[in-house]
Amino acid sequence: MSQKILIIGGVAAGPKTACRLKRLRPEFDITVVDQDSLISYGGCGIPYYVSGDVNDEVQLRQTSFHTTRDAAFFDRAKGVAVRTRTRALAIDRRAKTVEVEDLDAGKREKLPYDKLVLATGSQPRVLPIPGADLPGVFTISDLHKAIAIKERLARGKVGRAVVIGGGFIGIEMAEAFADLWGVETTIVEFAEQLLPGIVDPAFAAMLQHALEKNGVAVHTGEGATAIAAGENGNACRVETPKRTIDCDIVVMAVGVTPRSDLAREAGLLVGATGGIVVNNRMQTSDPDIYAAGDCVEITHLVAGTKSVAPLGSLANRQGRVVADNLAGIPARFDGWVGSFVMKAFDACISATGLSLTTARRLGFDADAVISAQSDRAHFFPTQTVIPLRLVFDRRTRRVLGVQGFGPSASDAVLARIDAAAGLIARGATIDEFSNLEMAYAPPFATALDALNATANIADNKLAGRLRTVSVEDFLAWMDDFASHPDWMALDIRHPAETKAFTEAFGDRWIAIPYVEIRERHKELPADKTLIIICDAGTRSYEIQCFLDSVDKRDTLVLGGGFNIMRRLGVGWWPGKQQS
Amino acid sequence: MSQKILIIGGVAAGPKTACRLKRLRPEFDITVVDQDSLISYGGCGIPYYVSGDVNDEVQLRQTSFHTTRDAAFFDRAKGVAVRTRTRALAIDRRAKTVEVEDLDAGKREKLPYDKLVLATGSQPRVLPIPGADLPGVFTISDLHKAIAIKERLARGKVGRAVVIGGGFIGIEMAEAFADLWGVETTIVEFAEQLLPGIVDPAFAAMLQHALEKNGVAVHTGEGATAIAAGENGNACRVETPKRTIDCDIVVMAVGVTPRSDLAREAGLLVGATGGIVVNNRMQTSDPDIYAAGDCVEITHLVAGTKSVAPLGSLANRQGRVVADNLAGIPARFDGWVGSFVMKAFDACISATGLSLTTARRLGFDADAVISAQSDRAHFFPTQTVIPLRLVFDRRTRRVLGVQGFGPSASDAVLARIDAAAGLIARGATIDEFSNLEMAYAPPFATALDALNATANIADNKLAGRLRTVSVEDFLAWMDDFASHPDWMALDIRHPAETKAFTEAFGDRWIAIPYVEIRERHKELPADKTLIIICDAGTRSYEIQCFLDSVDKRDTLVLGGGFNIMRRLGVGWWPGKQQS
Repeated sequence: MSQKILIIGGVAAGPKTACRLKRLRPEFDITVVDQDSLISYGGCGIPYYVSGDVNDEVQLRQTSFHTTRDAAFFDRAKGVAVRTRTRALAIDRRAKTVEVEDLDAGKREKLPYDKLVLATGSQPRVLPIPGADLPGVFTISDLHKAIAIKERLARGKVGRAVVIGGGFIGIEMAEAFADLWGVETTIVEFAEQLLPGIVDPAFAAMLQHALEKNGVAVHTGEGATAIAAGENGNACRVETPKRTIDCDIVVMAVGVTPRSDLAREAGLLVGATGGIVVNNRMQTSDPDIYAAGDCVEITHLVAGTKSVAPLGSLANRQGRVVADNLAGIPARFDGWVGSFVMKAFDACISATGLSLTTARRLGFDADAVISAQSDRAHFFPTQTVIPLRLVFDRRTRRVLGVQGFGPSASDAVLARIDAAAGLIARGATIDEFSNLEMAYAPPFATALDALNATANIADNKLAGRLRTVSVEDFLAWMDDFASHPDWMALDIRHPAETKAFTEAFGDRWIAIPYVEIRERHKELPADKTLIIICDAGTRSYEIQCFLDSVDKRDTLVLGGGFNIMRRLGVGWWPGKQQS
Repeated sequence: MSQKILIIGGVAAGPKTACRLKRLRPEFDITVVDQDSLISYGGCGIPYYVSGDVNDEVQLRQTSFHTTRDAAFFDRAKGVAVRTRTRALAIDRRAKTVEVEDLDAGKREKLPYDKLVLATGSQPRVLPIPGADLPGVFTISDLHKAIAIKERLARGKVGRAVVIGGGFIGIEMAEAFADLWGVETTIVEFAEQLLPGIVDPAFAAMLQHALEKNGVAVHTGEGATAIAAGENGNACRVETPKRTIDCDIVVMAVGVTPRSDLAREAGLLVGATGGIVVNNRMQTSDPDIYAAGDCVEITHLVAGTKSVAPLGSLANRQGRVVADNLAGIPARFDGWVGSFVMKAFDACISATGLSLTTARRLGFDADAVISAQSDRAHFFPTQTVIPLRLVFDRRTRRVLGVQGFGPSASDAVLARIDAAAGLIARGATIDEFSNLEMAYAPPFATALDALNATANIADNKLAGRLRTVSVEDFLAWMDDFASHPDWMALDIRHPAETKAFTEAFGDRWIAIPYVEIRERHKELPADKTLIIICDAGTRSYEIQCFLDSVDKRDTLVLGGGFNIMRRLGVGWWPGKQQS
């Protein structure tokens, strides 16, 4: 029995729904309308098109077999009708029609539907500051904007760029400007860190250092207050409360708003997030209308809260669920856990679940540990350290989130985050992470994988065996020893490594090599809190256990050790820093 | 309250137990005995030491901070007594003593224990064939053997090598010989494929092709029947029923046997596998004796069977569990799912759970699908195809196993296998894999990750929407069209790609581009079974759905398409093959 299916939106969730549904029910009459001329593109690829990693915008609109996904393709290959440059104006739920306007011909008509799918996406937020509408100020809303930006770059018109917003898109755009085009690029972010709320401060700081090493200036804790025009009327200066930054182009990447007006005006339920309310079959408050992608709100499976999650990966999954349900195959989308991965030059940052900041804000009795283990066997030539952070609930031992930082050339961090995500969604505890079976061979992992090791650290911390100082508190102390006059560093690394530190920091720094502590622990002062320092934190924990056994209990371990400090680009490092 | 803990075995599980337990209970008196002079080494690193990736054997015995883990180190740094060159002869369970012999002094004594830990490991199997004991025939039993092999290589004495056994260690050793040393290397494997039972034939064939491309000869389906000596008394020739292979060195890598004699002689329960029986707290049939590592049998969480799993990664996890239980912290090791990863030159193969072959042998109503998706966005420059295979139970929809093949330079395959392993251990279904949240950004993944896509293919197959021909059946047909006279290829790739095939295979091969099928389907013959072929299998599935809708139902999809064929190095490929 044929049905008329009308889908509004032709970027990700819309085409996915259309194509899957046509395969399941070839007799259905399926139409997609989109106000844009360009459809079915990989929006997440825009920064790589701007950078030049992807030569031509058409590549973002092609299939993996190099055919362009335009209206003719959908019609011919998929049997799906697509009307581009066609804007949906209003839904008449009683008549089951959608009024649309042909943006070229200016003609309006009413399209009937049996079932309607809203895949209207999201639009970039624009800060309400003077100059936000100047020429030369871009949001990354669609492919046309990307093409316009790249044209400016290619014409050699851009020497300096300011990116407003230190989220995913802002950072990826900053890399695109700086990496291939050599544009002098500055990021300004209103919050005190990059990726605020998404990762914890130490991981944001590692990311920031990776950007700065590659010439991107980053100013956090200062929002843009105005954009000024130059003589040609073009944006030429961004102002913050602390500085004025000259530029030839501005990218505003301060988040997105779901496009839910059409749904709201039709009387569909829209949540406090601004996203359309759907059940776990992606059905709106009208059983004949489904919605998917950036325009809906979904459940965060750890937080239990509703959020708008503008990710192409989720849009695709949701589109499949809509298609199945429309075809009569019950299917569910239960929510998300917030996995992401991002490249920043030679670095990669990735996370899943909640950060400690967010978990505590939500009322969890949360704590976290940080590790700095190798991604592969320490004797294998290509090994490198991948800092991981595990956030957990103290009462239930449930793992709430994992963060990772490492090189972008391998997928080492991705592997640990992907392994964690499925378990976190299912409420796994620290103990399940300790025993999680990670595939092992020296070229790919360590016998006890970094993720297992991080869970073991959390176990030790929860049991009270491991007591740590946070990266932030340690940095504050290094910045000003007076902040904790009772603290002293116990540096247990090799004498060749500690020499510069004992020379630089005098009586704040005592160095006894790890292997000598059992023999020499009586040399330690009794009236100080010892901050035990090694490279990864592992030896420091051992030493803390030993010192406990000889009743020297006033110690704290620097979690992740100097492997973390090296990735932060700290100013106090004596001599030449390695990272 | 102090206890005397005696641990027999000083490679992986033993030292792990000792060190963790000493941290938990510093008052315990812990002794490790080992018959070898070298202890606490990364045995899995031996092939990389032989290859030269690792310069010095001592690196395999070092900590990540470059300190050698010898007896003095354990004593000084860890507070653990280690007696090397000390063989355990017998356990007196009533007296709670172990008789040991100092292999240098020849002296025997009885060591008392409150709790005993058996970490006696495994020993390589030796085939009962003539010449197995000749000089120049090596098993990879310990570091001494590895040192002896590398000495021969370094002296330039090895021009040709034969590896008997196509399992992990055999293949890794073959790579070590061929890659750095340029040794002409041959693997002979008794079974019909490499990694028999562990991966399915198509994945073994991709691995084999990767080895052959790099100059390693592989002969499967033929076991070594004899090793002959040359004039110098050294092994110089390996014989199989089909050939004689000249060589300067032979490595015999045909599996391992758990070292459980000591346990058996003491009356402890030993299973049919030869492994010591333990409960999930790693306790043997004597509550005062624990065991861990290669010498125990553990539960396969998917198969439900007992097996011996000689992996350093599991030994470490088990050692931690033993330590916890001895310290009074209840801890469990419930079993394993069989995750592995292996490098073979520029290729990587990895899997978790059961292969289809093994699942069916165990009585599962199992089926499988194969995919050939990109590891990252198809427009991202570094993207490559990573074939995946998903094995599932038809009745319960439970995922039983996942296999993957890809490049060794990234961890793309590892990421998918690690993500799968934790879910498989928990009994996850195809549907949970479809919705598994894999982190996404174009440099690291595709919007719908390869693992999700593979689960979707399984869902389509189980629903009867996708009907496939197996790689094996397709290869048999390409080898001899008469095997299925009613079959015909429907090649839907681009005309530039299909031209050579229609020319080569005449009326066995019809080519209609994917985008033209809806217009031209009436050209298709009615009396043939059409084998639909594209690059990845995705378009073929679409075409199958469409042809079903026009009542042309006699079609089969070649799962994974020609992306799989390219990785097999097939002989019938017309013109120049790409992979």
